[in-house]
Amino acid sequence: MKLVTAIIKPFTLDDVKASLEQLGVLGMTVSEVQGYGRQKGHTEVYRGAEYAVDFVPKLRIEVLIDDAAVEKVLDAVVEAARTGKIGDGKVWVTPVETVIRVRTGERGSDAL
Amino acid sequence: MKLVTAIIKPFTLDDVKASLEQLGVLGMTVSEVQGYGRQKGHTEVYRGAEYAVDFVPKLRIEVLIDDAAVEKVLDAVVEAARTGKIGDGKVWVTPVETVIRVRTGERGSDAL
Amino acid sequence: MKLVTAIIKPFTLDDVKASLEQLGVLGMTVSEVQGYGRQKGHTEVYRGAEYAVDFVPKLRIEVLIDDAAVEKVLDAVVEAARTGKIGDGKVWVTPVETVIRVRTGERGSDAL
Ligand SMILES: Nc1ncnc2c1ncn2[C@@H]1O[C@H](COP(=O)(O)OP(=O)(O)OP(=O)(O)O)[C@@H](O)[C@H]1O
Ligand SMILES: Nc1ncnc2c1ncn2[C@@H]1O[C@H](COP(=O)(O)OP(=O)(O)OP(=O)(O)O)[C@@H](O)[C@H]1O
Ligand SMILES: Nc1ncnc2c1ncn2[C@@H]1O[C@H](COP(=O)(O)OP(=O)(O)OP(=O)(O)O)[C@@H](O)[C@H]1O
Ligand SMILES: [Mg+2]
Ligand SMILES: [Mg+2]
Ligand SMILES: [Mg+2]
Repeated sequence: MKLVTAIIKPFTLDDVKASLEQLGVLGMTVSEVQGYGRQKGHTEVYRGAEYAVDFVPKLRIEVLIDDAAVEKVLDAVVEAARTGKIGDGKVWVTPVETVIRVRTGERGSDAL
Repeated sequence: MKLVTAIIKPFTLDDVKASLEQLGVLGMTVSEVQGYGRQKGHTEVYRGAEYAVDFVPKLRIEVLIDDAAVEKVLDAVVEAARTGKIGDGKVWVTPVETVIRVRTGERGSDAL
Repeated sequence: MKLVTAIIKPFTLDDVKASLEQLGVLGMTVSEVQGYGRQKGHTEVYRGAEYAVDFVPKLRIEVLIDDAAVEKVLDAVVEAARTGKIGDGKVWVTPVETVIRVRTGERGSDAL
């Protein structure tokens, strides 16, 4: 299994979520973060105002998936999160050794 | 070393924490997240009210441990976080290559 | 590529950020967490007041970097985050299989 983590612009969440649901992804976890990329010092537009500060509010999305789903999930997230403007975000994949569904105790793909 | 991450119902935190302490786990990190699993569209009970919205408040717990402790820690977290109702959460394990304790500079198991 | 995650005292963020920028690290993600280490039950000083509770506010820093940068980045974070008092934090390294820059679709080192 894999964990796909994405840092996205907050207003793209609905599109990212809809794309993942269409692929059959069964769940996701979202948290509020702040960050910056290559334009630090420069400005990024957030809610119509220019941000001169370094840290811009973003959302972190985490999705546990089967290995076979990785490429489809990456494509879906990147397409849904892309606006074409700077600050659209990063997506990365990390290996996961075990997943457990707490209620049932199931492990592995059955636990997703 | 491993990182055990758990998404749990917030009111189970005290039990999860107590179980981990009993095992001798030395520390943990907690953050607020929101998420959904397989019942998206359906409702989940939170603080006595039904949640029709997709995202339900959860806590993310992160625990750095030695490889030898993984199974005991998984059992402890799953047992303490389980209520038997939908939405009890997910627990997963990821590999960690290096851990450093900032104050002392120690690495590896000594840093936990 | 690697993900370096650090749990640090909030007031050290500016120093950690400045150290990473000097190394040429191109971005970072920050979130608010709470945690405890080995002194649970004991007190830790936060904003001049003693914290008797277990959970102390910290920041989680995440930095995606090339493999070749790991040791330099670890040294920079640890040095900048260290005050010499208990609770200075933990830093760990996890493997990352793929990174994508959302706006451009670039992958790998080019995506950082
Ligand atoms: N190297 C990094 N490590 C960790 N997080 C990062 C890194 N780079 C960017 N991020 C996170 O991703 C968010 C969006 O980054 P961003 O899209 O601006 O990257 P970028 O490389 O500058 O691309 P662009 O040129 O399209 O702006 C940042 O606010 C930060 O939270
Ligand atoms: N595939 C997933 N990827 C990332 N996070 C997930 C995933 N599935 C669930 N989660 C997280 O775990 C939390 C709890 O999920 P939940 O326990 O509802 O999973 P489930 O598979 O629907 O199990 P159950 O049938 O017992 O409800 C969600 O709110 C979300 O934060
Ligand atoms: N085993 C652990 N797993 C996950 N997070 C941890 C762990 N230990 C510590 N942390 C996180 O790091 C933060 C700082 O930990 P801390 O620096 O107190 O570690 P420590 O081992 O007690 O070192 P010190 O003796 O210098 O205080 C905690 O508040 C918690 O968020
Ligand atoms: Mg940028
Ligand atoms: Mg569910
Ligand atoms: Mg401590």
